Amino acid sequence: MIRAKVIGASGYGGVGITELLTRHPEAQAAALVDIENVGKPISELYPHLDGFCDMPLVAPEDPTAQADADVIFMATPDGVGMKLAGEALSSGAKVIDYSGDFRFNTPKSYAQYATRIGLDTQHASPDLLSESTYGLAELHRDRINTNTRIVGNPGCFAVSCILGLAPALKKAVVEPRGLICDCKTGVSGAGRKPHAVFHYPARYEQMNAYKLAGHQHVCEIERELGLQAGTEVVVTFTAQVVPVCRGIMSTLYGTLTQPLTEADLLDMYKAFYADDTFVRVYGSTAAVGSMHVRGTNYCNLVISVDERAGKLRIVSYIDNLVKGQAGSALQNMNLLFGLPEATGLSIPGVYP
Amino acid sequence: MIRAKVIGASGYGGVGITELLTRHPEAQAAALVDIENVGKPISELYPHLDGFCDMPLVAPEDPTAQADADVIFMATPDGVGMKLAGEALSSGAKVIDYSGDFRFNTPKSYAQYATRIGLDTQHASPDLLSESTYGLAELHRDRINTNTRIVGNPGCFAVSCILGLAPALKKAVVEPRGLICDCKTGVSGAGRKPHAVFHYPARYEQMNAYKLAGHQHVCEIERELGLQAGTEVVVTFTAQVVPVCRGIMSTLYGTLTQPLTEADLLDMYKAFYADDTFVRVYGSTAAVGSMHVRGTNYCNLVISVDERAGKLRIVSYIDNLVKGQAGSALQNMNLLFGLPEATGLSIPGVYP
Amino acid sequence: MIRAKVIGASGYGGVGITELLTRHPEAQAAALVDIENVGKPISELYPHLDGFCDMPLVAPEDPTAQADADVIFMATPDGVGMKLAGEALSSGAKVIDYSGDFRFNTPKSYAQYATRIGLDTQHASPDLLSESTYGLAELHRDRINTNTRIVGNPGCFAVSCILGLAPALKKAVVEPRGLICDCKTGVSGAGRKPHAVFHYPARYEQMNAYKLAGHQHVCEIERELGLQAGTEVVVTFTAQVVPVCRGIMSTLYGTLTQPLTEADLLDMYKAFYADDTFVRVYGSTAAVGSMHVRGTNYCNLVISVDERAGKLRIVSYIDNLVKGQAGSALQNMNLLFGLPEATGLSIPGVYP
Amino acid sequence: MIRAKVIGASGYGGVGITELLTRHPEAQAAALVDIENVGKPISELYPHLDGFCDMPLVAPEDPTAQADADVIFMATPDGVGMKLAGEALSSGAKVIDYSGDFRFNTPKSYAQYATRIGLDTQHASPDLLSESTYGLAELHRDRINTNTRIVGNPGCFAVSCILGLAPALKKAVVEPRGLICDCKTGVSGAGRKPHAVFHYPARYEQMNAYKLAGHQHVCEIERELGLQAGTEVVVTFTAQVVPVCRGIMSTLYGTLTQPLTEADLLDMYKAFYADDTFVRVYGSTAAVGSMHVRGTNYCNLVISVDERAGKLRIVSYIDNLVKGQAGSALQNMNLLFGLPEATGLSIPGVYP
Repeated sequence: MIRAKVIGASGYGGVGITELLTRHPEAQAAALVDIENVGKPISELYPHLDGFCDMPLVAPEDPTAQADADVIFMATPDGVGMKLAGEALSSGAKVIDYSGDFRFNTPKSYAQYATRIGLDTQHASPDLLSESTYGLAELHRDRINTNTRIVGNPGCFAVSCILGLAPALKKAVVEPRGLICDCKTGVSGAGRKPHAVFHYPARYEQMNAYKLAGHQHVCEIERELGLQAGTEVVVTFTAQVVPVCRGIMSTLYGTLTQPLTEADLLDMYKAFYADDTFVRVYGSTAAVGSMHVRGTNYCNLVISVDERAGKLRIVSYIDNLVKGQAGSALQNMNLLFGLPEATGLSIPGVYP
Repeated sequence: MIRAKVIGASGYGGVGITELLTRHPEAQAAALVDIENVGKPISELYPHLDGFCDMPLVAPEDPTAQADADVIFMATPDGVGMKLAGEALSSGAKVIDYSGDFRFNTPKSYAQYATRIGLDTQHASPDLLSESTYGLAELHRDRINTNTRIVGNPGCFAVSCILGLAPALKKAVVEPRGLICDCKTGVSGAGRKPHAVFHYPARYEQMNAYKLAGHQHVCEIERELGLQAGTEVVVTFTAQVVPVCRGIMSTLYGTLTQPLTEADLLDMYKAFYADDTFVRVYGSTAAVGSMHVRGTNYCNLVISVDERAGKLRIVSYIDNLVKGQAGSALQNMNLLFGLPEATGLSIPGVYP
Repeated sequence: MIRAKVIGASGYGGVGITELLTRHPEAQAAALVDIENVGKPISELYPHLDGFCDMPLVAPEDPTAQADADVIFMATPDGVGMKLAGEALSSGAKVIDYSGDFRFNTPKSYAQYATRIGLDTQHASPDLLSESTYGLAELHRDRINTNTRIVGNPGCFAVSCILGLAPALKKAVVEPRGLICDCKTGVSGAGRKPHAVFHYPARYEQMNAYKLAGHQHVCEIERELGLQAGTEVVVTFTAQVVPVCRGIMSTLYGTLTQPLTEADLLDMYKAFYADDTFVRVYGSTAAVGSMHVRGTNYCNLVISVDERAGKLRIVSYIDNLVKGQAGSALQNMNLLFGLPEATGLSIPGVYP
Repeated sequence: MIRAKVIGASGYGGVGITELLTRHPEAQAAALVDIENVGKPISELYPHLDGFCDMPLVAPEDPTAQADADVIFMATPDGVGMKLAGEALSSGAKVIDYSGDFRFNTPKSYAQYATRIGLDTQHASPDLLSESTYGLAELHRDRINTNTRIVGNPGCFAVSCILGLAPALKKAVVEPRGLICDCKTGVSGAGRKPHAVFHYPARYEQMNAYKLAGHQHVCEIERELGLQAGTEVVVTFTAQVVPVCRGIMSTLYGTLTQPLTEADLLDMYKAFYADDTFVRVYGSTAAVGSMHVRGTNYCNLVISVDERAGKLRIVSYIDNLVKGQAGSALQNMNLLFGLPEATGLSIPGVYP
């Protein structure tokens, strides 16, 4: 049994992995650590877990928090995991970090990211960066294995955009510059902490764009798509919030480098993802939406072409809290321990 | 492996049991029958099932629909199951019917129910009525077993009201007359068929009472509570719809026959449900709501007493599509085949 | 032109009256006072007012806040208005207070209310209490006139319950004891301040009861209904939140003292409210709900009788922020200045 | 008093103009015509109008439907207005048509539009086309006056896109080809008729793109922007539905023809709309969204520039049922009768 420790267990990212662990046949929570709500059973904070996981939240300095673990999920904000990772690795645990702390392999690329979110550009554990792997299994599965010690779990918007555009850039059918990522997220993407703009009366009928000056996820999107393209990629990225709880719908546009039909692209995408359990590819008339991936680790891609304008358009749907966060983390854990990638993740979701 | 046939598979009740069967270790769908959407894979209608269940919906007269089955879920409106049950039983299958067709044991009690919903008061299979069992396992577990052939699955509102008041009536701590059941349901309770009052723009910010002249579920509530009380029970029942998708919140009031505290009642309720996996009992300050049972087979009961007015007040929360429908049906199936009652139903749900 | 000052202008209660004042032909905002967001134009905080009201929020000590006014709306929490009222009256202004501070006429009855919400039971201006009038115009119109100086605006739940039960108690057709007020409110009732339980992801699909130990509005409900009945009234009150923004649906139950039909009661209610613009009375089959009073000052009452159980049941719908707050306040202002009661309030709302 | 007849009064477009007419000081409804719900008072169908407009819906052949009118609002689907317009004009009434019937000035351009929506490409009144005016007052105010007889009210998506991009194309600061219009609409845009994909349980948590093969509004967008640009314009248009009731958020991208800052564009847009009451222009950090134009005739434009990628990005917010439909229609009516353009439309909306 894999012993998993969750740091930052009381947030949505933390409870997400805790929930998934209750269903996993080969792993279980060993400790739930947080600096808030210390002492409370997680099932008091999240009563749906009553009877499934009643472990208390413990402070980092609590002896329980020091318990041995095989893997540590850092469900923590930017800047925390980088300080804790060294000690965690020394204890023999593998580290899966939710934040941007380990999504970059050089201090320089990290600094560019940190600048965007107004954080210290100096990474706290720069020597660990080269060792970390970007945890998007569909593209980096070969480097996420039992020898891997650190995974930087990808950003939620980034997952949807990268999976949506990777095949087209790999095959060089779209221009690497001038890409548009028009992304709409559900409110849970902002986490558990209440805020004026996510207060129910201010949100239930509100849609709006935000961070128009630049969203930090663009760094990893351009880096990852650049790796596929073999050349620099430039993306215009728009973050928008709409009143759903879970879900990202990213509408992705690129200029075709050659006349291609939807059928051509459908074949190309299906081939690209042929071995990927969690990516489903659809034609433009399929009646799929964000609700059909809710509560699951799937990414649904809908392919279309605007032949008049010479544009490829991909609509990419994920659940921001699963494929965009805890689900990808668990998928990575499975790979880190040599388990089948979908272990504990073969869940159809609940509808409606 | 238990072979399950679902009649009426394309409605919410049908897809609900189909979804649950994909997770059940000892049962699987043998045929999905419907008169609408014939020929379509259920995963085209419900794309979240893509890769989990891609069986086509077949017409009743299709040979596939005649396949042998160990159990048949009649996820059909009132009046259908009563016509199909005889033949189903003859084929050796057990029958679990979602409608009111088999919730009553005499033609007379059925007729009272049928009158309320404007149906023919003549039951189509009157001789089967005495054999059927009311499928609320918490109260009738002893009569739902491998010898049982027909189960009348309870109404969603009824489940919430009966579980909420049964202990108090059994112990005679509330008056059997003058009970109030003030019930609020999510919109999925009305099923899959679009209707003007459930059109998103007409509902997202709308709450209203309906069927004020009398709701049919009151029949089974009064019958079941009467069985607990050992005397006639009279209930004033109000059905209301609020803009949630899943969930029932029933607020239940009764006049105390003696001065009792919340602590007294909490003890009584916890003792009554001590052996019931799916009922959780809470005191009046617990922060639980409908969202904490969403997607699960649980019933959460919150106990309070208005000492000034001499009233018991129970708030009862269920997911109308699970404990109120497909989940109870699966719980009954488990009992009918001698399996542990919670098989395939130990799911914490997904939050938020 | 009536000069109106709003204290606590940046909350929902404050912006509500500010919004209404922009449409009022005989009154206008003279100053918007608050201790938060000082210096910001209200239209920056509430951009829908851009071009309609761009006045800045000013601190209480700001000279602008001292400007002469004919009426002061205290859109402030309990305990604030009672401290400011004396000086306001001295300046020649009339006072309309939103909180419980002036809903009671004796220090003793105030103390009972204050106890329920954990406040100091000692009123700060006890000598003003006898002078204040409970601002439910439908019942106390004769005492809200140009000679009145202080109005205690009623609580939102209270408005819905009192209007719903007043005729029945006045005519003694229901027992004064054993009344049930089962109330469901939209989230805006909790105000503008974000909170964990009103965070969009925690609320969009959540319904729950709260304050089961006792809600403070029961004091004014029992007092007002007692005045109608001419005897003591006892109410069991349940507060519940459902995911709508605006609206209260209160379902009210009483035991009939004599056999009466819905038609009898409909006549009685229509006669009682014959001269009230803002109360509409409907029979049990009318398809009305909370959305039909949204954004308006109306109270819709749906009358039904459960003859089997001998119960009267009234479903009472209001917009908690209009008839339950700012609308009633403006209706009171109109009366205080001798204007037609509906001035500036004849708005049908917007649908859907 | 302007006498207004509404054809198709029972849909959202019809009730929208009826609602606005109740507030208009110089116009009033003369007849409400429909082929559905004939005989019912509109306030029975839309109870928020109870007491404000209780006129019955009458059939087209009803004598009341023949009453004289000064203006006829054709709140009807494509293909209806073109058949009724001739007779209406003969009666001396002006015509404002909501559909695409009069948005084009030649049979050929109409045919291209009709092809996209699968209608007969032959216009029923081709000789009236050259006379009709596209009813976007901000761009065509000079041709909407007391001499104008027919106005083709613009499409909801089109209003948001055209207002958002017109200044940039007029000033030739973006390339006329390769424009992206990524549009998200609330559900009310689909009208009053229930449909499986707008059923509350299927929509409350669902976002999805639709009509990916091509949306009909692209015709008028390209035509209108082409008029501004003085050259052919090519737009890639994506229609998406999110779970709000009212509102369109269109995110519009164009490639800058020269390096320009946000400040440059802000100046350009403010100058362009200096005389337009109903367009508000904001910089990229303004906290505005769809909810701030809800229930109003405003269009809020948020300007931003992605300097790295050389892209202009405009986020355009309207209420699809007001500025996108009935509000623009009333604005047009005002111009047709020589009234100030904002008469009856100066409404801040209601928040939250």
